[in-house]
Amino acid sequence: MINSLWSQIPELNQQLEQVQGIILKQIKPLNDPVASLIKQQITSGGKMLRPACLLLFSKFGPHQDKNQKLQAAAAMEVLHLATLIHDDVIDDSDLRRNVPTIQVQLGDRNAIYAGDYLLTVYFDLISQVANHQSEIIFNARGIKKILRGELDQLQINRNVEATVKMYLREIAGKTAQLIELSAQFGAMLAQADKHIIHKARFIGHNLGMAFQIQDDVLDYLGSSKLGKPKLEDLKNGVYTLPLIYTLCQENSQLPQFLKQHPQLNDSQIQDVAQIVKEQGGLTAAQSLAQKYTNKALGLIRELPQNQYRRYLEQITKELLQRQQ
Amino acid sequence: MINSLWSQIPELNQQLEQVQGIILKQIKPLNDPVASLIKQQITSGGKMLRPACLLLFSKFGPHQDKNQKLQAAAAMEVLHLATLIHDDVIDDSDLRRNVPTIQVQLGDRNAIYAGDYLLTVYFDLISQVANHQSEIIFNARGIKKILRGELDQLQINRNVEATVKMYLREIAGKTAQLIELSAQFGAMLAQADKHIIHKARFIGHNLGMAFQIQDDVLDYLGSSKLGKPKLEDLKNGVYTLPLIYTLCQENSQLPQFLKQHPQLNDSQIQDVAQIVKEQGGLTAAQSLAQKYTNKALGLIRELPQNQYRRYLEQITKELLQRQQ
Repeated sequence: MINSLWSQIPELNQQLEQVQGIILKQIKPLNDPVASLIKQQITSGGKMLRPACLLLFSKFGPHQDKNQKLQAAAAMEVLHLATLIHDDVIDDSDLRRNVPTIQVQLGDRNAIYAGDYLLTVYFDLISQVANHQSEIIFNARGIKKILRGELDQLQINRNVEATVKMYLREIAGKTAQLIELSAQFGAMLAQADKHIIHKARFIGHNLGMAFQIQDDVLDYLGSSKLGKPKLEDLKNGVYTLPLIYTLCQENSQLPQFLKQHPQLNDSQIQDVAQIVKEQGGLTAAQSLAQKYTNKALGLIRELPQNQYRRYLEQITKELLQRQQ
Repeated sequence: MINSLWSQIPELNQQLEQVQGIILKQIKPLNDPVASLIKQQITSGGKMLRPACLLLFSKFGPHQDKNQKLQAAAAMEVLHLATLIHDDVIDDSDLRRNVPTIQVQLGDRNAIYAGDYLLTVYFDLISQVANHQSEIIFNARGIKKILRGELDQLQINRNVEATVKMYLREIAGKTAQLIELSAQFGAMLAQADKHIIHKARFIGHNLGMAFQIQDDVLDYLGSSKLGKPKLEDLKNGVYTLPLIYTLCQENSQLPQFLKQHPQLNDSQIQDVAQIVKEQGGLTAAQSLAQKYTNKALGLIRELPQNQYRRYLEQITKELLQRQQ
């Protein structure tokens, strides 16, 4: 199953199906039940934003090798999957995309090794497709940077003194960095002009920042489709932008309240969400997501004009308007 | 600190010091306390068998680039370290080489990301030193195989029906595989004759098997230096060769006893160890370690005669006779 986000762009939709096929082939040598749990994750309709970015940016250069790009796109999704599986161990999560996590079904051991295996599949795929050895090093350095970010992370969860700056730094590493890398590597594989490669990076960054903020907003907002807000982040003590904006307001009673109740009960969660809404935390977060989106759109419009630039524009706008 | 195993070979001892230096440089960009815990692990006198194998086998070919080999050797030790850190999360271990583990000091999150970071450092280093892109793919495939082995593993711990075959399959993946890869990659970097590269693999395999069995024997045997046996494996429910040999004996009462007492107390541990000794489990394990050692020595003697072949012989013998 491919996320409906791509149904408007049949060319990309079809390529993402092929990307899923490549990933499934990589999983095949694993035994059940690990293999079938990973397979469920892959086909559960994730947005596949990273491979899509790679594929779109790979259209902006003269070197066009379809298999090469599809494999590279698969590598990016595999890496993303590896980090999700390890995150599920860290957070002890039950479900991911409504599929039971490896960690809960098969324990830490299998989940940690499955993540390590996928991280290695990523390097295997990248090593096969790179035009030059330097592109493999480029990828390794990018991933090192992401992981260094995770290790250096200032703890913002359950920290009433978390700042907007801390939050932005966190999501830059956690989300935007891999989208940047995907966009940039797509342009590199196509042997695009170096200005385009440079631009791909910043478009990826701004798109990634907007994407994560919007994700965090949706957790508070709910949607016509999904019904009432999930408030998963509040439940798990994850402090995201809407809450942090509210915490930072002068005279807010919220920091005091959260200090006193580090573990919120259901009714307190509803109360806090209500305060975040009333005091403008959501509006402020949405407006920052809009800013990043505008920045990305401005940069996209500097790319050579072709259908892929139009797709990029279209998808950047849709990501901001999505309801899930 | 370099393990005293290498004090007889000053040339190698000095190179392993340089390898440690390269690894420490890779850790430097990380913040404390993660960096200093990893640093303690690196300098705590581990045997550095994998980098040593790579360095020794890199002497059997015409291409001699000292920095290249040192970096590749560092990569192998970094990968080994990554797996140890993830293993400590899985086993919830307090200490590794008498140093507090990252997992116990800083929690799962930091330990998992630190392992992922080191896995990526491995690929970064390998990508920098490889003579050809195919050598990077060779490494990725090797690591995939190790991790696939971990995921496919038949559970032998606390399993009274564990067989010698299951044990050998486990240690082949867990230990011998990376020693094989190190030996083979060393020969590849030197652009050695393909027969030598092939032989390097089998020497690495037999050396690795002997090494792990000896490690497992020492846990039961203790040593004049270390005093009484640690029996860590029995304490943790890890079934290794001496116990498995004893379990497999006809008319043994041990399977029944272990089934009834899945969690042994201190006095039961001593009793089981005594039975393993008396019923010949230790002797049988030692004799298999000797067999693998003899196989390795036979293959080593087929290598071109030079000082590095002598070092390989010397170290293979010493590893079997070591007391810790």
